[in-house]
Formats: sequence, C-alpha cells, structure tokens
Amino acid sequence: MFLIGKLHEHLMPKVELNKNKMLQAGPAGNIVMVTCCDKDGRANIITAGMYMPISSNPPQICVGIAPERYSHNLILEQGEFVVNSPSIMLKEKMHLCGIKSGRDIDKFKEFGLTPIPAKKVRPPLIKECFGHIECEVVNRVICGDHTLFVGQVVSASADKEVLAGGNLDVLKAQPIVQKNHLYYTIRA
Amino acid sequence: MFLIGKLHEHLMPKVELNKNKMLQAGPAGNIVMVTCCDKDGRANIITAGMYMPISSNPPQICVGIAPERYSHNLILEQGEFVVNSPSIMLKEKMHLCGIKSGRDIDKFKEFGLTPIPAKKVRPPLIKECFGHIECEVVNRVICGDHTLFVGQVVSASADKEVLAGGNLDVLKAQPIVQKNHLYYTIRA
Repeated sequence: MFLIGKLHEHLMPKVELNKNKMLQAGPAGNIVMVTCCDKDGRANIITAGMYMPISSNPPQICVGIAPERYSHNLILEQGEFVVNSPSIMLKEKMHLCGIKSGRDIDKFKEFGLTPIPAKKVRPPLIKECFGHIECEVVNRVICGDHTLFVGQVVSASADKEVLAGGNLDVLKAQPIVQKNHLYYTIRA
Repeated sequence: MFLIGKLHEHLMPKVELNKNKMLQAGPAGNIVMVTCCDKDGRANIITAGMYMPISSNPPQICVGIAPERYSHNLILEQGEFVVNSPSIMLKEKMHLCGIKSGRDIDKFKEFGLTPIPAKKVRPPLIKECFGHIECEVVNRVICGDHTLFVGQVVSASADKEVLAGGNLDVLKAQPIVQKNHLYYTIRA
C-alpha cells in the first residue's frame, strides 16, 4: 500500500512569511478589556489583544498597550488598571471598545456596560465580564511599538457561575479567542 | 411581569478569589512549544503557557520561562529561540514536553518530534507544529517567579495549508487553548 498520507506529510512545505505577516505563525490570542481612570476618577475601557500571566507567586500579569492610545497615559500616570475577561457574548461591545477612543466618548455609557467598584484600585470593574484582576503597575518596558505593563495583582474576583472548585471553568465562561480581529471561543 | 432574569443579573455575586487563585479570573491562554539549544547545538523543547505578541513593527513577541527550567539558561546564554505553534492534535506530546526536563532526555527523540533547520537561528523548528517564529532575545525582565524574554522576530514560517491570503486560518490550524492544564481548541 502506498503511504500517501506519510508522503504528503514529508513533502508538506513550510512557507516563509513576509515581515508584516510574521506574527501569523503564532497561535490564536486572547482578549481582555482593561479599565483605567484619570486623576479625577473618570473611567475608560481599552480592549487589549496582548495579555498573559507572567508570575504565580507573587501573582503578576502583563498587558501590552500602544503609546498613542488614550488609556496608555492613564495607566502610566495613575499606576493602576483592571483586567476584565469578556465572554464571547460580549464580542460586539469588546470590539467597539477597541476601535473607539475614550478621548471622545464614555465607553461605559455608549456601549451599555456597567461600572462596579473594584476592591483595591480606583478603576472600576466591568460587571458584564466574568473575571476581574485588579493590578498595580510594578514595571513598564518599551517593546517596539507597544509598552508592556507588568501588573502586580492586588485583588481578583469572578462570577460564581464560571467557577468550579475555585478554578475557572472555561467551557462555562466561553472566553474570547482571536486572530486578525476574528473572534472565536473554545471547545473541548 | 416580574423581571426574574434582570433581578438575577443584578444580584449575581462576584466571588473574591484567594491569592493562589487570582489568575483564574483571566481568560484562557495559549500554548507554544519553544525550541532552544546549548552551545554545542544540542536542541531542547519547552512548552510555555506564557506567550504573547508585543510589537508589530518591528515584530516582537514575549515568552515567560521559570528560571529553574533547563531551557531558561539555554535561552539566556545563546540568546536565540523559536516559538513553535502546536495544533490540538499534538496535545499529548506538547504536555509531555512541559513536564519532562531536557536535562534528562532528548525530547525530539523521546516523543517522536522532527527537528528541521531554522532559517536565521540555531535552534531547530518542530516540523509537526503549524507555525514557527524565529527570535533573537532583545530584552529580559524578571517578573516575580518567571523571566520574561522579549524576542525580536528574525524569520517566520508556517504550513501552507493553514494560511489563507497570508493570514493564519485558525479554524484550520486548530491551535491549543488552555487553562489549568486542560486543553481545548477553538470554534466559530
């Protein structure tokens, strides 16, 4: 029997990617909605496709924000932000929060999102998200065209219905996964 | 009519998370298999749940590795690594590469993975992965219990069959999404 599958696998070419397509070779990414506020406590939301945890003990996370974004200097100046995790049901509002600027509008009002007080920081939580990580900025690194903010987690909370034994049940939470502004969720 | 749905939504409690559960409030994460090598060119693989792109121009990515891992000092000393993106079909081998140490075994041989030469760096690509991002270390930041390596992308490639118009088609690539060592892939 001719092993056509094996042969195909052996010959399968790797295609080289142009400089502006290099990041296509990476996996899908996640999406968070970051809240921050100005010196007077006026809150803003920015959608960020650059997020990852970086330390368990102490708990720390990273988020990448471009310097020209309105939220960038709010986070820089106030030193606080909240990472809010949206489910796929929030994808339209999440997308709008990523393309509109808080310089022009109040995104909570405009998109029907509900601010609720955080426990340890001034920026509010977005009630409609399933998880909330309150952070104080402990480091900041310029990486090419973005600033990487390292946040020390000072408090965190989540909807009761997405937790199972203290862990996130992602099949219940249905977080957003994205690539090229196309939005997906997960399956087993 | 009594608005039981609205009432429930209004009362839905946010549960505060203990310090060791705080990162549960974040979304699902992605998984990459990072290749690196020692001064003699002997290659190793480490599975990393901490990965994100951080800059488009120049293309840069971040990966988090704990200092006690064998790969940590290989990357530190050699200044090069490759981010390989596995599909859900590789989940068993990916998991094994995360729990075994390259101090003890040759993971390529042990788990039946195929090294193929990279274009610009010494660590090999993992042929069975669908995407490959070759990086030179341009920055390193200690963040709690992990080191964050910032890699400048010097070359990238992907399987022809997962590309559509130069972009990754994630429904074809079926990347791994994870939380708490449970592995998922995506759906529309």
